[in-house]
Amino acid sequence: MIQKLWKNRWARRALVLLVGALIWFTPIPWGLSPDAWQLFTIFITAILAVLLDALSIFTASLLAMIFAVLAGVMTTEKAFSGFSEDFMLLILSAFLVSKGVVASGLGKRIAFLLIRRFGHSTLNLGYCIVATDALLGPAIPSNTARSGVLYPIVLSLCLDTGSNPDEETRRRSGSYLMMVSIASLTVSSALWLTAMAANPIAAGMGAQYGVRMDFVHWLLVSSVPSLLAMVVLPYLLYRMFPPTAQETPEAPRAAAEALEQMGALSRKEKIMAATFVGMVLLWGLAGLLHISMAIVAFMGLAVMLLFDIFSIKSLREEGGDALETFIWFAIMYVMSSALNELGFMSTLGKQIAGQLQGLSWPQAYVLLILIYVLIHYLFVSQTAQLLALFGVFLEVGVNAQVPVALMAYMLAFATNHFAAMTPQASSANVMFAGSGYLNQQEMYRQGAVITIANFVVYMVCTPWVLWMGG
Amino acid sequence: MIQKLWKNRWARRALVLLVGALIWFTPIPWGLSPDAWQLFTIFITAILAVLLDALSIFTASLLAMIFAVLAGVMTTEKAFSGFSEDFMLLILSAFLVSKGVVASGLGKRIAFLLIRRFGHSTLNLGYCIVATDALLGPAIPSNTARSGVLYPIVLSLCLDTGSNPDEETRRRSGSYLMMVSIASLTVSSALWLTAMAANPIAAGMGAQYGVRMDFVHWLLVSSVPSLLAMVVLPYLLYRMFPPTAQETPEAPRAAAEALEQMGALSRKEKIMAATFVGMVLLWGLAGLLHISMAIVAFMGLAVMLLFDIFSIKSLREEGGDALETFIWFAIMYVMSSALNELGFMSTLGKQIAGQLQGLSWPQAYVLLILIYVLIHYLFVSQTAQLLALFGVFLEVGVNAQVPVALMAYMLAFATNHFAAMTPQASSANVMFAGSGYLNQQEMYRQGAVITIANFVVYMVCTPWVLWMGG
Repeated sequence: MIQKLWKNRWARRALVLLVGALIWFTPIPWGLSPDAWQLFTIFITAILAVLLDALSIFTASLLAMIFAVLAGVMTTEKAFSGFSEDFMLLILSAFLVSKGVVASGLGKRIAFLLIRRFGHSTLNLGYCIVATDALLGPAIPSNTARSGVLYPIVLSLCLDTGSNPDEETRRRSGSYLMMVSIASLTVSSALWLTAMAANPIAAGMGAQYGVRMDFVHWLLVSSVPSLLAMVVLPYLLYRMFPPTAQETPEAPRAAAEALEQMGALSRKEKIMAATFVGMVLLWGLAGLLHISMAIVAFMGLAVMLLFDIFSIKSLREEGGDALETFIWFAIMYVMSSALNELGFMSTLGKQIAGQLQGLSWPQAYVLLILIYVLIHYLFVSQTAQLLALFGVFLEVGVNAQVPVALMAYMLAFATNHFAAMTPQASSANVMFAGSGYLNQQEMYRQGAVITIANFVVYMVCTPWVLWMGG
Repeated sequence: MIQKLWKNRWARRALVLLVGALIWFTPIPWGLSPDAWQLFTIFITAILAVLLDALSIFTASLLAMIFAVLAGVMTTEKAFSGFSEDFMLLILSAFLVSKGVVASGLGKRIAFLLIRRFGHSTLNLGYCIVATDALLGPAIPSNTARSGVLYPIVLSLCLDTGSNPDEETRRRSGSYLMMVSIASLTVSSALWLTAMAANPIAAGMGAQYGVRMDFVHWLLVSSVPSLLAMVVLPYLLYRMFPPTAQETPEAPRAAAEALEQMGALSRKEKIMAATFVGMVLLWGLAGLLHISMAIVAFMGLAVMLLFDIFSIKSLREEGGDALETFIWFAIMYVMSSALNELGFMSTLGKQIAGQLQGLSWPQAYVLLILIYVLIHYLFVSQTAQLLALFGVFLEVGVNAQVPVALMAYMLAFATNHFAAMTPQASSANVMFAGSGYLNQQEMYRQGAVITIANFVVYMVCTPWVLWMGG
């Protein structure tokens, strides 16, 4: 009976509404203002609806915005302000640019060039995947989109090396390469400010605390832990869950053939590559030149439109998901930032920090990040968790004397490095999880190993931001 | 040689760039600030590029924004501000709602109900089309989208009444009904604030001059000329270009059959219809209740998502064109409004008004609207013309003592009522023009008749806004 009810989406919706109403009418704690409490209620109810799959995150965001405006706890102006935020438009424009990058075949060419040169062993193939992913990172701001570039390459690598998605041969190279891909995406996303859609949001929230999180700083801070993780993860997986095939002489041969078939770089590919490099350079120089990163991405998009690398037709046909992301990101970001402005984050932060009394800041730092990571067993969307919890955790950390730059960067990195935890921990995992090379149990076990390794590497290395002077 | 060059898009782009450079380095006239002159240059060059088909309007807008920001004549903040404008988000959200309305089959049902009851003559069928179009208007803010709803209904009407797209039978009823559809769209778009995407932009610009252009006021002012035009146009076309079939007893029979096939109103259709009515009511009450019209549209969208009338999947697949429109609208609107803020419109307005000295305001009013309408022979996009010229013409009119409310409403209506002028005068004409029932010559001739009739009707009736106290 209860199970049957649970399967009914409207029943779950009613439950969510009930919980929301209960919170709404709870006596307001900690001297919060009614506005802050009501906005919190709306926000947390929306998140709950998503966690229980009562609503899609898009619908939940819309409804939350509408409620908040009608209840008078947020002005319409504030509700809409996210749509013109610089970093929201960076996400939107870079999202559109990445569609051109993906379609151009640039990713395939990079991968095959690496494999032709280095791909004679399974371990090396793992490193080739990691390198391709990291190189594509800056211009593909969606880890899910990047997984779509990697997946067909990885799949053909598996098949070329005699590993099929069946019990006899899947462990030859396939299981290993698929899991390396999942691991790789966690790190490539943490490496670049523009490699994951939620990163610019984290940067925007960090900036509210005075933390410098521009393209260059992000890369500098992230490079130490991320490069180490890129070296460690493929090796660790190789040792702990060894593929049965070690040598893969077929792979470089197949890559050479594929490159021959692709022919020389076409004019469009050259322009695309130049645009790619130009964008990354300008992003790096954006702070110095005082150009907005979104304007740089729009420049890249304009070049691609001028040279027909990306067409208006493609925009119309494929722009829908960019619009979807843009709308719910902008709404949820604004709600999260409004909660902050109404003093909710700081009050809640102080309350929790009170519980941490007696801990030194390094202890608090480790404990908070550990909790933040473990909570991701609940969340499906990386961005939703960031929007719901980044602000609170940052506030708590600051109250517990953790240096703010360290806390902000670490939370931002954690939002990426915990993405291998479960098959559903990131939408970037979906294709690999469904490849047939990995079963659920393996994914949970190896996902836990990757998450622990990432946790340790980033925990130990990120503090070098302090040495940089924060 | 020149013709061949002209066919090359890059040659036309070079030409546009050259013209732009010439304007840029022209000595600045009328004591304008350099910023105003440079922004004007960028804006007019973008418009020129679109007129010469050197660039799509999307690419032209992007490039114009990038140039303006890099040249320092517009801040990034200003450039992006359009994305969070209330009426831009109204356009975006209503655009998405309309996709659900179109998919729901509501338009078809309304049309068939009318035809079953009234459709026994060709003239009456014309009025059925006009009524359907006007009823759908408020919830389909794109005249092009509405043309997509009407077209299949009109086509099946033609075929049902024995009129095929061939020389023998096309004049039976087809040519007439297709042309009535084109005429109808001009009026339905002018009738409702939310029936054409550019209307809310006009309302936003009018508001800057203190003109009240909300949903109810718009409808009140527009109703007198629009209802008259709805009565006049089908009759006028019927008299001047008579269809050879006058009685159409087949049409009500076919409509009855179609209704039978559709069956009773489904649950989804009922919810859709209720949402539709609810949205229109709330739009009407928006001013009184102090709710933003965009929030109302988002409410409609949320209801449709909740009840699966519109799905996230459809949003992803079909949202691309909404995103395209949203981006270029927002950019072009901001540039146009920035030109206004920099004093360009008022200076140019005074200059042109100087030429009109000696004219009484009614003379100036007629002359200005006439010029505004005639210029549309050049423009493909109604919105582009509005963005480029609405501000200037409004300013000139005000300087020539034309009451501002009259001038603002009349320019807004004209932007709709001139849409039948040429086959390419509106993208809403495309399907009818390509139906095979009309040749180019007929479309230009009948288009001129419609435009003249609209011009006279709106010119004579719109001044009742003055009687309303403007």
